[in-house]
Order: sequence, then structure tokens, then C-alpha cells
Amino acid sequence: MLKLNSHPSGRHFLQIPGPSAVPDRILRAMDYPTIDHRGPEFQALGKKVLASIQQIFKTEQPVVIYPSSGTGAWEAALVNTLSAGDDVLMYETGQFATLWKKLADKLGLNAELIEGDWRHGVDASRIEARLVADTAHRIKAVCVVHNETSTGVTSDIAAVRAAIDRAKHPALLLVDTISGLGSADYRHDAWGVDVTVSGSQKGLMLPPGLSFNAVSAKALEASKQATLPKAYWGWEEILAMNEKGFWPYTPATNLLYGLAEACDMLLEEGLDRVFARHRRHGEATRRAVRAWGLEVLCLNEDEYSPVLTAVVMPEDGNGKRHDADAFRRIVLEHFNMSLGQGLGKVSGWVFRIGHLGDFNDLTLLGTLAGVEAGFIKAGVPHQRGGVQAAIDYLAETAGQ
Amino acid sequence: MLKLNSHPSGRHFLQIPGPSAVPDRILRAMDYPTIDHRGPEFQALGKKVLASIQQIFKTEQPVVIYPSSGTGAWEAALVNTLSAGDDVLMYETGQFATLWKKLADKLGLNAELIEGDWRHGVDASRIEARLVADTAHRIKAVCVVHNETSTGVTSDIAAVRAAIDRAKHPALLLVDTISGLGSADYRHDAWGVDVTVSGSQKGLMLPPGLSFNAVSAKALEASKQATLPKAYWGWEEILAMNEKGFWPYTPATNLLYGLAEACDMLLEEGLDRVFARHRRHGEATRRAVRAWGLEVLCLNEDEYSPVLTAVVMPEDGNGKRHDADAFRRIVLEHFNMSLGQGLGKVSGWVFRIGHLGDFNDLTLLGTLAGVEAGFIKAGVPHQRGGVQAAIDYLAETAGQ
Amino acid sequence: MLKLNSHPSGRHFLQIPGPSAVPDRILRAMDYPTIDHRGPEFQALGKKVLASIQQIFKTEQPVVIYPSSGTGAWEAALVNTLSAGDDVLMYETGQFATLWKKLADKLGLNAELIEGDWRHGVDASRIEARLVADTAHRIKAVCVVHNETSTGVTSDIAAVRAAIDRAKHPALLLVDTISGLGSADYRHDAWGVDVTVSGSQKGLMLPPGLSFNAVSAKALEASKQATLPKAYWGWEEILAMNEKGFWPYTPATNLLYGLAEACDMLLEEGLDRVFARHRRHGEATRRAVRAWGLEVLCLNEDEYSPVLTAVVMPEDGNGKRHDADAFRRIVLEHFNMSLGQGLGKVSGWVFRIGHLGDFNDLTLLGTLAGVEAGFIKAGVPHQRGGVQAAIDYLAETAGQ
Amino acid sequence: MLKLNSHPSGRHFLQIPGPSAVPDRILRAMDYPTIDHRGPEFQALGKKVLASIQQIFKTEQPVVIYPSSGTGAWEAALVNTLSAGDDVLMYETGQFATLWKKLADKLGLNAELIEGDWRHGVDASRIEARLVADTAHRIKAVCVVHNETSTGVTSDIAAVRAAIDRAKHPALLLVDTISGLGSADYRHDAWGVDVTVSGSQKGLMLPPGLSFNAVSAKALEASKQATLPKAYWGWEEILAMNEKGFWPYTPATNLLYGLAEACDMLLEEGLDRVFARHRRHGEATRRAVRAWGLEVLCLNEDEYSPVLTAVVMPEDGNGKRHDADAFRRIVLEHFNMSLGQGLGKVSGWVFRIGHLGDFNDLTLLGTLAGVEAGFIKAGVPHQRGGVQAAIDYLAETAGQ
Repeated sequence: MLKLNSHPSGRHFLQIPGPSAVPDRILRAMDYPTIDHRGPEFQALGKKVLASIQQIFKTEQPVVIYPSSGTGAWEAALVNTLSAGDDVLMYETGQFATLWKKLADKLGLNAELIEGDWRHGVDASRIEARLVADTAHRIKAVCVVHNETSTGVTSDIAAVRAAIDRAKHPALLLVDTISGLGSADYRHDAWGVDVTVSGSQKGLMLPPGLSFNAVSAKALEASKQATLPKAYWGWEEILAMNEKGFWPYTPATNLLYGLAEACDMLLEEGLDRVFARHRRHGEATRRAVRAWGLEVLCLNEDEYSPVLTAVVMPEDGNGKRHDADAFRRIVLEHFNMSLGQGLGKVSGWVFRIGHLGDFNDLTLLGTLAGVEAGFIKAGVPHQRGGVQAAIDYLAETAGQ
Repeated sequence: MLKLNSHPSGRHFLQIPGPSAVPDRILRAMDYPTIDHRGPEFQALGKKVLASIQQIFKTEQPVVIYPSSGTGAWEAALVNTLSAGDDVLMYETGQFATLWKKLADKLGLNAELIEGDWRHGVDASRIEARLVADTAHRIKAVCVVHNETSTGVTSDIAAVRAAIDRAKHPALLLVDTISGLGSADYRHDAWGVDVTVSGSQKGLMLPPGLSFNAVSAKALEASKQATLPKAYWGWEEILAMNEKGFWPYTPATNLLYGLAEACDMLLEEGLDRVFARHRRHGEATRRAVRAWGLEVLCLNEDEYSPVLTAVVMPEDGNGKRHDADAFRRIVLEHFNMSLGQGLGKVSGWVFRIGHLGDFNDLTLLGTLAGVEAGFIKAGVPHQRGGVQAAIDYLAETAGQ
Repeated sequence: MLKLNSHPSGRHFLQIPGPSAVPDRILRAMDYPTIDHRGPEFQALGKKVLASIQQIFKTEQPVVIYPSSGTGAWEAALVNTLSAGDDVLMYETGQFATLWKKLADKLGLNAELIEGDWRHGVDASRIEARLVADTAHRIKAVCVVHNETSTGVTSDIAAVRAAIDRAKHPALLLVDTISGLGSADYRHDAWGVDVTVSGSQKGLMLPPGLSFNAVSAKALEASKQATLPKAYWGWEEILAMNEKGFWPYTPATNLLYGLAEACDMLLEEGLDRVFARHRRHGEATRRAVRAWGLEVLCLNEDEYSPVLTAVVMPEDGNGKRHDADAFRRIVLEHFNMSLGQGLGKVSGWVFRIGHLGDFNDLTLLGTLAGVEAGFIKAGVPHQRGGVQAAIDYLAETAGQ
Repeated sequence: MLKLNSHPSGRHFLQIPGPSAVPDRILRAMDYPTIDHRGPEFQALGKKVLASIQQIFKTEQPVVIYPSSGTGAWEAALVNTLSAGDDVLMYETGQFATLWKKLADKLGLNAELIEGDWRHGVDASRIEARLVADTAHRIKAVCVVHNETSTGVTSDIAAVRAAIDRAKHPALLLVDTISGLGSADYRHDAWGVDVTVSGSQKGLMLPPGLSFNAVSAKALEASKQATLPKAYWGWEEILAMNEKGFWPYTPATNLLYGLAEACDMLLEEGLDRVFARHRRHGEATRRAVRAWGLEVLCLNEDEYSPVLTAVVMPEDGNGKRHDADAFRRIVLEHFNMSLGQGLGKVSGWVFRIGHLGDFNDLTLLGTLAGVEAGFIKAGVPHQRGGVQAAIDYLAETAGQ
């Protein structure tokens, strides 16, 4: 393998907020020979993954699986439901909400972005107000990000649904939970989402390369009128083939092997336990951050992400913040750990700690110790004791 | 792993014309932990695969790598270069040419399909005639399939190029060599192709999940005027990020590990030797088919595919052909081998033998022996001696 | 991996009579991180493999698993049951019987070898006669090889048991079925064997590195009086630790992962089906050999090995046999297949075809086709049609 | 894989002092199909591992590689060089020295054990005195353990050599560095060792299943006179076959794949850097232990093991020590980490932390954090700040 020779000793700590560490069970499941995608063995695999993934999305409605990155599933959600020039309402929770907006623009949609401060989730009342004002019902879709990977802030999707309902507005609700699925509680059906977009390389613990659209009946109905050109992303043909466990084009077979294993792992542990584990690790991380005397980017404690924590770099004496990226380089070079960079508006003054996927207490403590050691090495001012605070919390809550 | 418990003993013979058998070196290369797609180790990987894949396409121009099936790269070639309502000229070499045409239609293009008999490659003179007639230069692109996977017929791309040139027509030349690349000689630059479309799961010996667009300067220029909506498939942003070895969205890292290894393997063996190996196996297969007294679907010996051979089922006494799919089921059930089905117009009376990728003489002979044993088991009339003919030919030509 | 770069394309045909091809399920099972050999997870593994392996030996008595080659288990069988200078009676079925005799000599035993012609199995009546003559009961053990890997001849172990019983002789019966276990029917308990010796790399489909002693109560009793020095091989301490699923020293954990999987595979297929599959492939191989006009080394059809077939090279015009090893080199070089060499007394004029383990019809046909192509390439005189004969037989008997 | 379904989330911390964590590079290297152990590809592998392993032992003399556990290599060292009833002088550094003594007894040797306190290494002057007293030169070998895995104490092998030399005694020097090789500096030639015993599952980062004897010319000479029975372990036949890269019996091929990779990894990093890394992690661990107010078992700072640290449990109020094994169970259950148990004389009041092999700062910090969290969870009295002390030390020394 390329460059592995130059690896430092020991296991790399991949603590970006995705791709997350792929567990051995999944790597081994994918390491089997590819099979005939038109044969009976594949058919059994296809049926299994299609049924399993519904449980993860908490839906009884179809989930479309694409061989693509999550960005492809963003595009799919839009081209299947909308027509050129349609108005869509989006909400600036952070970098990924912003990128989805740019993608909508490229596709010829008329996307409006409700401005946000990157430190809070969606304020559903602002969506409600905007929809109420849209008496002509020009807005065809409301698009929000459930777990904003750039900020570590989650949004209350049920509240957005309620806001749309209160406004009695017919817009579709499209939600990106690319980095939330399988880590943070998510309920496609119960929350009345029309299209949920997700990807493989986060809570699903897979390598990147698969993405998803969970699709409501209303969204399916809308897709029949939508006129944006679509072929690869078109739901209709895929869903027709999926009936029998197949795909219209060659699916990413080996990633599907991994998906079958990933769903088994999540369901064996139990989704509620998976979510509780993530929440506990989020809390331990924030306790460390506070003990260091630093600030969590997310300002609303109801909106803390269980997936990642964005940390604000402290100021130096001159009113400038220490450089987050210089710090991250030192951590990578000296402590063999990848941390997430600050993106977009928070670039340079924020770094992100991923605590998602196939993860446990000691890997988190190693991670936090690496951050603290990195602070020392990089001369970032902080109070000692962050790791100690996390140890105390984890010991106190272990086995509960 | 799902259903592996029910596997019959021994190694499955995956003799469809792709996905081809993935060699251990590639499976193992992909079986490494996913890394940070924004870090220096990934950067080295990105630069390596981008440079290596150019050698496989025989181009010094950029090759775009998508996390998608080959179908996605078909779409990408069109949406990057064309605008709604554009005329494109396509050529019905078989099922995949037909499917590409349907995809063009879905995207809102005005695709014209020159009719073919599914037993010959492209007749470049017919393209020339059509282009000459198009004095208004309404046709924006000529799209042809290099190795038609449904028929085992290749087309002479250099001849198509020459035909366009003779017609002094400005149309772009778009070529699908999804199942040809890495198995049949292909020269993106020398043949003057504007966009070459390919995929990972054939001659590149990878699982499905990556696809490619090799892009000429003329195509890049055209992309600036093309107005079909594009985001995920847009070349511009990808090429800009590729400059540094990165991608705008999360790439399919583990498949890229495999791609690096696959290119190494092909270049270590040497492309000329790879192509000669495929041609020799094609000839051995056809000798077996003829010895059985059966017909190869491809009628023109200059157009035999080195990748696969489509075989016409013999007639029963009543003027009907024996059912190819019943035969294939018997082969799968009794001899643990997957053969390719007949598609579209040749469905039911043709089956296909893949002899591509990571392949050798004895695996071919086992394959042909499985076909012959299947004929016996299924009661398909044939002359004995097909395998013997292949043995003789391979022994005679071994080590040359 | 060392030298893999120079591999020819495609999968190597490893048709020696062991190590046999390791199936992907087993390779992947072994590809997990090593665990604490004193912890509860290991304990569950230990108990499972100890219980499973009994089913494979068809015994309810203990099976000792060593981290060693099969040669180690030969030594273990002797040092646990015998004392310096003890007489043991052995039977020259071929090279491995001869090597076991030499090993006994090295350990200070007084081993007597009943001469054989390497083309027949054990003649139990000769053992009976020798034991009857041993009125002083100086002979402490009778040692025979069940499946002689050097000749492709099996011996009737039940007949040997009966011979000992008829002679009313107290000698222990020690049997080597290193290359027979998991491929040829074997019954440790029903046949009254005292120590059965086996290894991992044949019918168990594992890499080499594990070996076995199945041990009768009588052998255990004998071990208490036996005075040959023993430590690593000593049953007593191992059996005591095995009670709880552990070993006295660090066991070969990852090979035990593979053993658990291997036993599962054999038991899922069903031992009777496994044996029938091997017998059928042996018969197909012999039909090919006869059709080539060549001779099978084994002269007694009741003693054909289902594991391998040793083939006698034909004579050239001058009363000399063609060189088997020159032929094997040509097959390796040109057809990427390893065949077994002739060993000891049959060196140079015999080669061996392994048809054991994770194997199937088409791999056998590819193997036989490689032999036939090798004959052509090497100029070995033969009649054509060997592969054809095997195809006919396999087609005729498929699915029965 | 057995029981993996019940695994807790995340990667297990295998912090016993061996088997150590096997890195992915090595697991993948071993995950290739087994090859013909008599063919040219194997020969290249054999030559490579035999040459590489000499560099690890720092010897130009032969190293014998056994398919066995380390215990087998203990036995091999004795049976190759000694005769029944020979006197051997051993030194009680801890449990493994004691076990080697018991093994010598079982083999019929007359082993004398110089008593030790399990908290110090070998006192070479006591060996010297004993040898001086042995004017008849009845003592044929001095056997010492270099890195005592049960106590975390190393011994000065050069000093033992010097003691033997000063006593002008002809005894052989046999050294066990099963758990030291590849982690602690070791010099077979420079230190004048006659037989060095080692194993695969510690600093070599492999699964268990291979063991080693590095052999001096003097030891080889002695082996010609030694009369203990030997077959499997006999050097002579192995060394003769090793000349050409082969083994007399089937070697553990897949473990040899791993060994080739392991040696490459150690030599790429550089042995001096490997040793320095281990020393630094040992120091960080001891700083944590001291900060917790606990005692390191090893009393002499010149003898601290860089491989593992044995920690003495604190006393409860009643003059009894807290139960180390109850503590370890809580750590395993709640924090998914395996720690080493106290063995033999220190059973129950000592636990051991392995910090060897493929290891790094953050894995060590996660390990130490798991110990500290375990103390809290188990109610083991300690001062806070052990992890903090280790963070400080590692940050201070990073990149030096």
C-alpha cells in the first residue's frame, strides 16, 4: 500500500468527524470477492441491505442506495423532487448547509438561505414565518441539515416539521443527516421527513462510496412532476429494480457487503444504546473542553452534537486566536492523530473532534489526551485537567 | 458474511463480462483503514492514482474519477459537454449503446441512434455520411461504444475519428470503453477522443464503485458553454481540487487504494502484454465455440472482443433456439459458475463468457470445461471437443 | 508482499496434495486481531474449537491441538506413549511412513518397518503375522499411515485394528491421517485408534501451523508409564488446561480462529458430502489419467486416495521414463500451477495431483486441462481426451 | 467469527505484555493464499525471512525458525545442546525463568535455580560465584531470561557473559528474550550468547505460532555431542534445508509472510528508534504509576523493562492488598481493555501493563486513562494525576 511504509508506529487516531474508523468486521466483510450483481446470491444481499437500512432510518418507506458520495445524494434529493427555477428554502447552520445551497444553485434552483450564526441549530420559527409569508406557495422544499458537521450543532427536525405544518405549507421537507445517521437519533417516518439524505462514512462506519435517499410517499408523488433532468439519480427505475433486490446499474457490491455488516452491528448493539453511547462521549468531550477553559462552538446545550465537538481556539494576548490549523498539524505530526479542520466561516479558529462510529471510552481518552498533549506541544494556553475531567465522568458513568 | 454459509465448496467462477474477479492484491489493498481525505497521506494517494490512471487511458490530459457506477460517468460525459435539446449521434452496437441513448433522452438531449444488427461494430462510413449531411452542424457529439459488453464486438475508434475529420464536422467524440479499458488496447489521445467513459469493475479488476471521464482540451472548452445542470458531475471543481491531489467531496478512499494497486499491477505486467493475454484468451474461447459447432455472435473477425465472447445457442429440432438462461441456471447450480446473460435483443438466445481481468489459461480452461459440462447436463446439442481445441491452442501458444 | 509483483496474472492453481487452497472465509477469519489468550473471549474460542475438532475426528475422546507442523504431532504421538528403546512396528506405505520411521529412530525407539512397494496400502495380515510372532509383546505400538501423501494410496485402518485384535496383542495403534482428515472418511473411535495424528493444511483447508493428536483412554493410560522426555508435547498439562478452554502456553490464536471457521464449513457441508465430493473428484482424475493412456501409481482400486492421485510418467522410446520434475517445471512456468513432486523411491517418475480441500468441478477441470496442456508443451507422449473424459464423468454425475 | 457479535463498540485495548496488537500491514500480509512450500516463490520468501531475522537478533549466525510457541523454542535450546542428567544453572527472575526450569526438569536435566526476589534482574556475580565453585565443569549451560515478562525486569546479558568468562567456565549461555526481541536492545553476537530463544507474538508484532533459536558456532558444536532425543527441534536438518530457503517439514507459511513484513517494518523504522520508542513509553508509564502513588514492581531503575510495567496494588486499610484480578476484570468489563495478570509468586497483588510492539503515544495514554478510570470504578485508592503526568512527559519529549 502506498506510503504505508512511512507510517509512524501504532494505530492512527482518525478523529475527524467522518470518515470514521472502519471496524475490522466491516473491512473483512468487504474483503470478499465481488459476485454477479444479477445472480441469486446478490439478490439475497440486495434484499437484506434494503430491509436493514430502513430500520436505521426508522422508516417503512423506501430507501434508495446510490454508489456515490453524500454530495450525490444531496443532488438526488433535489433533482427527483424539483424543477428548474423552483424556490427552495434552506437554513445556514454551517458549511454543509451552505454547500448544499450552492449545489442547488448549480442545478438551476432558486435557493434562499436563512442566515445563521454557525453556533445554533435551525430556529424553526423563522422557517415558519418565512413559509407563512409565502402565501403563493412558491417554495417547493425546505432543506435543513440535521447534524451540521462543520459546527457540531444538531437541529430539531420534529420542530421544523411542526413549523411547516403550522404554516399549512405544502413544501417538501428535505433533511441532510449525512453525519448523524447511526449516531444521533433520527426518525424519518415519525418526523414526517420527505427526503432524508445520508452517507456511508460516518455513523454507518463504512468507507465513503455509498449514499442514501429515504423517500416519503409525498416525495415520490412530487418526483412524477419534477422536471429537472435526471437519469443516474432517478428514483423510479431504481425502486422498480429494488423490488427484486437488484439495481438498474452495477451497484457497489463490496460496499454493500459492508453495509449489511454495519446494519447488523448497529442493530445488535441496539440503536438506543448506540445513541446513548454517542451522547455520553459527547458529554465527556465537552467536560474536557470546559476543564481546559475553552469554549465549545455550539452555544445551545439542547443542540450539542453527539457526533463531534467543535472547539474554539483560545485567544493569544493580542486579541487574535491561536491558529487551529497549526495546532492540528502539530497533533498530526507528533501524536499521529487527525482532527477536523475549521471550515468556511470558522476556518482557522475552530477545530473539530470526531467521537462517532466504532468508538469507545479509551479511544476517546486517548483522543483527548492527544489534544491536551498537542496544546502543550503547540504552546496553546489552556488549563490542565481536561483529560482528568473526562476520566472522572466516564468512570462515574461506566456501566450505567 | 451473508449467505456465504450456503456456498458450495471451492472458488466460484465469475465469468460474466464484469464485474471481473478481484485479485487478492487489490482486495487486500482496499482492506486498510480509511484515512483523512484532507490529510497529507491522502494527498500522496490522490496524486498517485491521478497520474497512474492517465497511463491506463494513454492520455496526458486529465482523467476525472467519480465515486459512482459507470452509468454515472455516461451521464457526466453528457452533462459536462452538452445543453438541453442538443443533437447527439449514437450508434446501436448493442444493449449498452441503447441504454446510453436512453440516458441521453432522459437528460433532455435529442439523441439519434444509427441502427445496428448487434453483430457488428460501428460502421464509421455511416457516421461520416450522417455528419456530412448535417451541414448546419446541429450534431454536437458523436457517442460510440468501444467494447460492446452485450455482444462481444469492438469498434474501431480511430476510424470513427477519421470519419468525423473527413466530414470536417466539429462534433465531440465521446467513447464508452467501460468494459474495454485495461483489457483491450485503447488510446484516448492518439485516437483523438474528447471524452472517454470507463468504470472500475472490468479490466481494472476492482469492485464496482468508481467511474472515469478522460477529458480532452476541446471537451473542457465545450464544458464552459454547456448548460445542462451539473453539480456532482461537474468537471471544473473536481479538476481544480485534483491539482493538489484532493477532491471537492469525500472520495471513495478504499476504492482508490485499490485503484492505485490495480494500476501498478497493469503497468508491472505491461499494457501490451495485458492486451495480448486478453486476445489470446479470446481466440482460445472462439476455437472452443467453433469446435462445439456453435456460432460466435460477432460476425466480423476484426471486431472480436478480447474481453468477452457472446455465444449463440443452437436450434432445437423445431426451429427454436435452446434457452440460454435455462442453460446458465444449470451451469450456476451444478458447476458454480456465473455466465453473462443475453441482454435486450439477444436475450434468451445468447450467453456471454467473460475472459477478462485477472485471468489465466487454467481458469479459462476450467470455464470452457464448465460450459461444455453444462451443455451435456442441460442437453444442449453440441459437438465434443471444444475444451480440447482450447487446450491445444493454449499449449501451442504458451510462452510465446 | 514479497515477490507478488512478479506473479503472473490470475489465480495460481495450488494442486499439490497440501497445503491446499485456503478459502476466503478461513483467511478472513484469521485476519482478525489477536486476543488475550487468558481472557473470556479466548475461552469461548478454545471450547468451541476443542468441541468442533472432535466431530471431525469422529471421537468423543480428547483431541490435543499443537502450535506446530504435522511432524510435531508425529513426535508427540511417540513421546507421550513410548519409552527409550521400545519396539514399534511400522509399515512402508511410502515416503511419509518412511519419514515417521526415521523420526522414531531419532527419538531412540527401535522401529521396524514392514517393507512395501509404494503402490499398495497396508496389508493387515502381515501386521497380524508379525504381532502373533511377538509372543513377548515387545512391540509397544503399531504405526500406520491412513492416507499416504506420497503415493495416493489409502490403508484400511479398521482392518489393522482387527488384525491387532485377532493377534490379541496389546500394542497401541497410532495412525497418521495428516493428509486424510476432512477429506477421506476417518473414525478415531469406531476404528479403535489410540492416537491419531493430523495437521491443519490439508482437508482442514488451513495454512500450516496446527497439528493434532486424538487420544484414546488406553493411550492416555500408556502416557503415564512412558518415559521418553516430553515437555512441549506432553498431553497431561495441555488436557488439564483444555478443560477450561485454555492452553498451558500461548496457542496459535489466529490459526485457531481459522480452525473454528474450517470446522464450521465442513460441518455445514456435512462430512459425508465432503467425503463423497473428494471421491468423485478422485474418480474424475483417474478417468483423465487412463484416457491419457497413463498409469495411476496406486494399484488397488479399493485403496485409491480421494485426496490426491499420483501419476506415473510414460516411458520414452529408450526404456526411460520422462522426467516428472521437468514436466512440473514447465507446468509451473507456463500454466501457473504447482503439482506435487515424486518423493523418495518414486522421485522423478511420478507427479501428484492434489484434489482436496476447498475444491470444485471447474477447478479440477482447469487442473486437468493444465496437466494435458503441460504434456503437449513438454512433449510428454499421451493420448488426447483426458479432460474430455473428466468432463463427461463430472457432467454425468453432477447433482447426484 | 466466533463471538465477535458480542463485542463492545470500538477497538479492544490489548495491553497484556504479549501477544501484542498485530498491525494491519502484518495481518494483511498473512491474509494471502498459502503457496507451495517446495516452489521457487516460497524459496525467495524463505531466504528473505532467514536473512531479515538475523538483523533483528543482531547476529550473523543462523537463526532457526520453528512453527511452535516460544515454549517449543525453550525446549529446542535445551534438547539440541544437552544430554540427559546434565547440570544447568538457571536464575529465578520470575515466573518464566521458573517455568523454563520446570521444562528442563521434565526433559531429564538437572536444573539448579538461583533464587531471586522477582523484583530484580540477574545478579551476574552470583552466577560467577557458582561457576567458579563448579571446578569439575559439570554445569553445561547457564540459562537466563533477558526480559522477564512476569515482572517487567530486564537482566544485563553482557554482564552474565562477562561473569562466565571471568569464571573461565565452558558452560553455554542460553538466553530467553521471548518478550524482549524487537522491543529491547538485544545483541546475540556482541553479547556472546550461544542460544537465544524468542517468539513471534511480542516485539515482532505477529500472532503467536513462530519461535526462534539463534545459534552460535559453539552451540552448534555442542549439538553434535548432545544426546537428548530430538527430531522436530533438531537444528541440523533444518539448517541444512535452510541453506536453500526451505524447511524439512511444512513451515507455517502464512506466519512467515507476516514475519517478512514485520522485519521490514522494524528495519524501516530503525531498531534504535524502535528501542527508544519503547523506553520512552516505559518511562511515561512509570511516571503515571508514581503519580498514582503506586509502586513499580521492578526495584532497580537500570533494569526497567521497556516492554511492560508490573504495578503493585495498594494496600487496603487492613494490611491486605487490593485484588489485582478483580481490578482487571472491572477494566475488561467496563473499559474494553485486557491487562496482564500477576503470575506465580506475585499473583493477585500485581497487574501488568504491556506497552510494546505496534504502539504509540495516544494508545498508551488511552491505556493509562483506562487504568485510572478502572481504579475509580473499582475503588482502588490512588492519587489522581497519573495520566496527566504521562501527558506532560510525552508532550515534553515528543519529536525529540
